Formats: sequence, C-alpha cells, structure tokens
Amino acid sequence: MRAQSISPFYVMDILARARQLQAEGHDVVHLEVGEPDFDTPESVREAAKRAIDERRTFYTPATGLPQLREAIASYYQQQLSASVSSRRVVVTPGASGALQLALSVLVDPGQKVMMADPGYPCNRHFVRMLEGKTNSVNVGAGSEYQLTHELIEAHWDEQTVAVMIASPSNPTGTLIERDEMQRIIQTVSRLGGVLLVDEIYQGLVYGQDDFTAAEFSQDIFVINSFSKFFSMTGWRLGWLLVPEEYYDAVDRLAQNLFLAPPTVSQYAALEAFSEQNLQLLYSQRNKLEHRRDYLLQGLKALGFDIKVEPRGAFYIYADVSAFTNDSFEFCQQLLERAHVAITPGIDFGEYNASRYVRFAYTQNEEKLQLALDRIRLFLSSYEIK
Amino acid sequence: MRAQSISPFYVMDILARARQLQAEGHDVVHLEVGEPDFDTPESVREAAKRAIDERRTFYTPATGLPQLREAIASYYQQQLSASVSSRRVVVTPGASGALQLALSVLVDPGQKVMMADPGYPCNRHFVRMLEGKTNSVNVGAGSEYQLTHELIEAHWDEQTVAVMIASPSNPTGTLIERDEMQRIIQTVSRLGGVLLVDEIYQGLVYGQDDFTAAEFSQDIFVINSFSKFFSMTGWRLGWLLVPEEYYDAVDRLAQNLFLAPPTVSQYAALEAFSEQNLQLLYSQRNKLEHRRDYLLQGLKALGFDIKVEPRGAFYIYADVSAFTNDSFEFCQQLLERAHVAITPGIDFGEYNASRYVRFAYTQNEEKLQLALDRIRLFLSSYEIK
Repeated sequence: MRAQSISPFYVMDILARARQLQAEGHDVVHLEVGEPDFDTPESVREAAKRAIDERRTFYTPATGLPQLREAIASYYQQQLSASVSSRRVVVTPGASGALQLALSVLVDPGQKVMMADPGYPCNRHFVRMLEGKTNSVNVGAGSEYQLTHELIEAHWDEQTVAVMIASPSNPTGTLIERDEMQRIIQTVSRLGGVLLVDEIYQGLVYGQDDFTAAEFSQDIFVINSFSKFFSMTGWRLGWLLVPEEYYDAVDRLAQNLFLAPPTVSQYAALEAFSEQNLQLLYSQRNKLEHRRDYLLQGLKALGFDIKVEPRGAFYIYADVSAFTNDSFEFCQQLLERAHVAITPGIDFGEYNASRYVRFAYTQNEEKLQLALDRIRLFLSSYEIK
Repeated sequence: MRAQSISPFYVMDILARARQLQAEGHDVVHLEVGEPDFDTPESVREAAKRAIDERRTFYTPATGLPQLREAIASYYQQQLSASVSSRRVVVTPGASGALQLALSVLVDPGQKVMMADPGYPCNRHFVRMLEGKTNSVNVGAGSEYQLTHELIEAHWDEQTVAVMIASPSNPTGTLIERDEMQRIIQTVSRLGGVLLVDEIYQGLVYGQDDFTAAEFSQDIFVINSFSKFFSMTGWRLGWLLVPEEYYDAVDRLAQNLFLAPPTVSQYAALEAFSEQNLQLLYSQRNKLEHRRDYLLQGLKALGFDIKVEPRGAFYIYADVSAFTNDSFEFCQQLLERAHVAITPGIDFGEYNASRYVRFAYTQNEEKLQLALDRIRLFLSSYEIK
C-alpha cells in the first residue's frame, strides 16, 4: 500500500519523547526542529491584521495574488540580479505545495528523479506518491554532500527525467557554487532532463554572496519559501518558478490540488520585501551565522567530526561514528540522559545514515551553550558502541 | 503526461472573459463561483488578529492543533449528536487537503473509486493523479443525482476499493437522506470497500434537519471544511475524519504532503464554534435559503427545467435543453450578451453534461433579480439550437 511505503520521520519519535519529558517537568533543548525561534517580523504581522480588517479573506487565483507574483519577480531582480518574469511565478501553500506541483508535472509513473542521499526526505516520498522512482546518488564529504555535474552525468539513465538539487542543503548546510551550478544546468539540459532547484534556504548563506540558479536559466524549476529566511513558517506560503511552457499545466494542477494559497498569508507576504523588513531579516541572518560559528566550534571541540563547514541554512551535519555505530540510538540516549533533542541521519536517506546526526542551530546562544554543556557530560559517560 | 490528462475547468474561460468584460466597464453578475458574498464573521477575524499579536505563527502538528481537533469533535457531539473521538480528527489545508489525504491512503494504482457523474471535478482528478481509476456512475433526476445503495451494488467490481458520495452535492444541491445513508454505509461495508463522504456543505441544508454520516459509523472517512458554512474560504482550512486504524498513515502523509495547516487560520477557527458565531452562521444559512427560493422560482418561471429541488449547498442544477443542445455555448452567450456568469455542466462530468448548467446563489437578492431580468431578455432573443 502506498501509504505504508512512506517511512515515518524518526525525529517524530524523538519529538514525542521530548514532549513527554517536558510534561514530566524536564527542560529539553530543541536542536531537532527546522524552525528558528524568530517571530514573524512585526511589519508583516501588521500587514496581515490590516488584510483581515479589510475583509481580504476570500479565495485568490490558484497561482496567487498578481501583485504578490510581481513582488516576488521584483525581489529576484533587485536582491539577486536575476531577471524573472512574474508570469513564471506560482505562489503555493508552503514550499511543500511547490514541490508537489513541480514533481506532479514532471514525473510520470516509472520515471526517475535523480537526487542526493542524504537529502530532504519529503522529496523521495513525493516521487513515490506519484509512482515515480528515485535515482538516488550517494554523496559524501568529497563533493560537499552535493550532486555535481560529473555525478549527474555518471548516474543518468534512460528512465531519469529530472534532477533535484538543493542549495543550501538540508541536512548538510552545504552550497553549490556559481560555476558548478552553471555546469549542472548545462549538463542536465544536454542530457534532455529538467532541473529542479530547492532554494528554500535562499537568503541564509554565510560568509559569501548569495545567488539564485534562476540567474542562469529560464528553463529550470526553482522552489522557494517564505518560511525560513522570511521567518513565516506557520503562514504556509512558498513559491515556484516554472519554465513558461509549464505555466498552464501548473496552474491547472494548482486549481485542482489546492484551489488557492492562504489569502491573509499572501497579503502579509506583500510586506515581506520592504527595505525595512529585509534589513531586519539580514540582521537575523547574521545572528544565525554567529550561532553556526558557536555551535560548530563547540561540537568540534567535543570530538564531533564535521567534515565540511556548513555555509547555509541552519544545520550542522556531524559524523558521530567516533562515539557510536548507531546514530539513532545515540540521539535517543542523548535525549533520554542529557535532554538534548537532535535528528538522526536515517531521516535523510540510507547512505552512511547510521554515522550521522543533524543539529539545527535554531535556538539562541544561551541554549546552544546549555546543549554543549549537557552533551559534554553525556559523552563523558557514553559507552562507545 | 499526467498533467495533460487533467482537464481544465471550463468555467475558468467564463471567468477570464467575465474579468475582461468588467475591465471594459461592464457590470457582470457572478453566479458561477462557489463562494458566498458573506465576510468571515468578526469574532473569527478578531481571534485571528489576537493569534497574530500573540506570535502564534509557528508550525503546528501536522494533523492540527490538539485544541482544534477537540473543538471539532465537540461540534459533532453538540450540533450533530454524533460521537466522534478527537483522535479521528485531522485538520487539513482546506477540504482539498482532506480529499488528497483520504484518496492517497485509500487508492493504489489501478484501483477504482466509485463516484457519481455529475460530481465535483477535483475528485476524479485526484484519483487520476494517484494513477487510480474512476468507476463513474451516471446519475439522473430519478435518484436525485445521487448514488444509491442499489447503484453502488450494481456497479461494484473487483477493482473498486472505495465509494465517494457528497451530501449536499456540488453541482446539484441534492441530499442523501438518513435511511439511505445508513443503507449505503452497510452496502459499502458488506462489499468490502471504504466509504468517503464529502460533507463540505454540511450545515447548509434547508427545510429539514441536518445530520452527518459520522453519526452512523466510525469506519468511514468524512471530509468537511471551514470554507462554506463557516464563511472562511481564503483561510484554507478543512478537516477529515478517519477510521482510527488509518490515523497513523494519514498523519505520516500529512507530514510529508503539507507539514501542517496554516497556523493563524487554526486559531481563528477555534472561535468558529462559539454559540454567538453559530447563531450568526444560522442566520446566514437562512439568507441562503431565501436566495434559493427566489432564484429557483425565478428560473422555473423563465422555463428552466429544474427536475429536483435543491435542498443544500448553494447550487441549482438546471436542464437547459429546452433552449440549447450545447450548454457551454449557452453559458458563453449568456455572459457575452447578458453579462451573467454561470457554470456549464461539462465541468462536472460527461453524463448529459451538455444539457445542464449550474447556478450558484452566492449573491444577494438584488443581484439575483438583476440576473433574472437579464436572463429573461437574453432568452427572448436567443435562438433555440
């Protein structure tokens, strides 16, 4: 049965046990959830309240408010020097909606989508739901846990119709550089496939300039979201850039799958691109960069093996094989004995999954320090397995 | 290609042309859209604003806020005398999300879902997306455009795994009565299938008591929504009752497909069940009943053949074969010459589709009167084809 073939997130067990511990009065440090502790910015919240007062609570077009599609196109032009027509912008219920639309128009039963292992687990689950197959490519520290144009070429086969990459990546926080992005675009195009770029963490890049794959091609799909950089998780709003020839099919699918994205969220998001708000978001990005530096240094000092410095999103992907050969059990014990919640590698694929864990630096430095102190104590009594 | 097999809504052509006419300065009466002109009630809007002020804008659990699931369960108990455990309630991004979840756990490739023609078009499109098949049963005025337990038994085959019914129905506004609902539940159960009941228009029933199929069985799926009775379309919030043994699979799918429903909408919806708000909603229902009476009488007087009195939702399904043998062309001409927008039968299936049109009485009586005046004039010069 389809539903049974979709594996659960193991982190849900962690989360459930964490809630139980909290209910028993224990303090748990949450480094497992992909949601920073930043509130949605005030100007965005006020815009939402104005929309509610103005009774803007009816359906919008299936692909979103025209003025929001325009605003997203302008954002690409002004912040990322990428020329994107608003006709290519589809506003979606979260990046989840964007992912579903893109894969639904690209993948027919039996066809394959190439993607990296480790990667965001929903990607392969969506492909499975559509009766497609995953062309899963094991990636390691050597390629910074990313697909490369050489790997794509080497693993291409006749059933593969699309390639999915993510920069910054979840769970590894690594990037694909400008030059390599261009080579990947060229390679996938030459192979006759379609490229789908997950830029959900776009904007959260540290120590170097950010860019978008949309700068280099009008013929790729790009997924983005108001959740992460814009601190709007619960508003469930994302977007998808589609090649123009796919727009009508995507519009038709969106009408059927979703009717429309949430209206108040769309009016709120119109305010997200103001200069004032962007300045606030850049300062939050700087905070995340400091948190990364702090946690990265702390974990390394404790003996965690972090082979590639994460340069985006808010994740650190650490090899714990010096401590254990079962990273899920390690996560369970860490929660049970030290009350620190993190995510096991098994949630992101199969390749070397039992060696890795993911830390999310979504909490403030005080809590990160508390977590590091607890982990230090935990490791001192942890029996290496 | 999957996307190309999903037919567009023909009403989108009508809608696009209506917008064009309006842009040219014409006044168009909109009787095509399934969205009444009622604002979201003030107490619900205020609750949303409070949630925003209290920074309740983070992710919720995938199946919704526990307190909202409880509130929905209480609503069934108090308003509909149906005992529903909150463990069976899944809050979803619109009824669209509920429909997708239910069909995704029920239908594997090649399996069939039985449903009535005419019916809500997304139903068959979702089944198609899942590589399932539609066991489409032609229904006419004789069964009030509804499946019956006899029809279900007669059309059952080995590939069929589920039956989908809707009461009140879109596009016909007809109901399934209590006795027949119980017989349908028994029949589908005896045949070894699963029953999925679309109650999206629950609460909008005229001239008789309302009920829910959930009163009679814990082993069926029921879809509902905050959009219609609760006047919350743009908030994109619905729910699904699932048999308990399906809860874990549905939860897992919801995590993957949606992450979570919109948070502010969920806090707003908590206010929707207050006694004060329900009284307001009942008064809106009474307004819709008056509109139905008014439009029904008016259309009959003009010669529209309405074979079954609609008793729910806000739709009138009218046979226009006295005027035309092409109801889509009739709709186009009515818009072009009389500036009244309605929906052609072809949007709801194939069976006798060219004989029927759907009127939505989602506008006030003044506008309904204007529409009737315009239709009268239009018919006086319309050449019967």
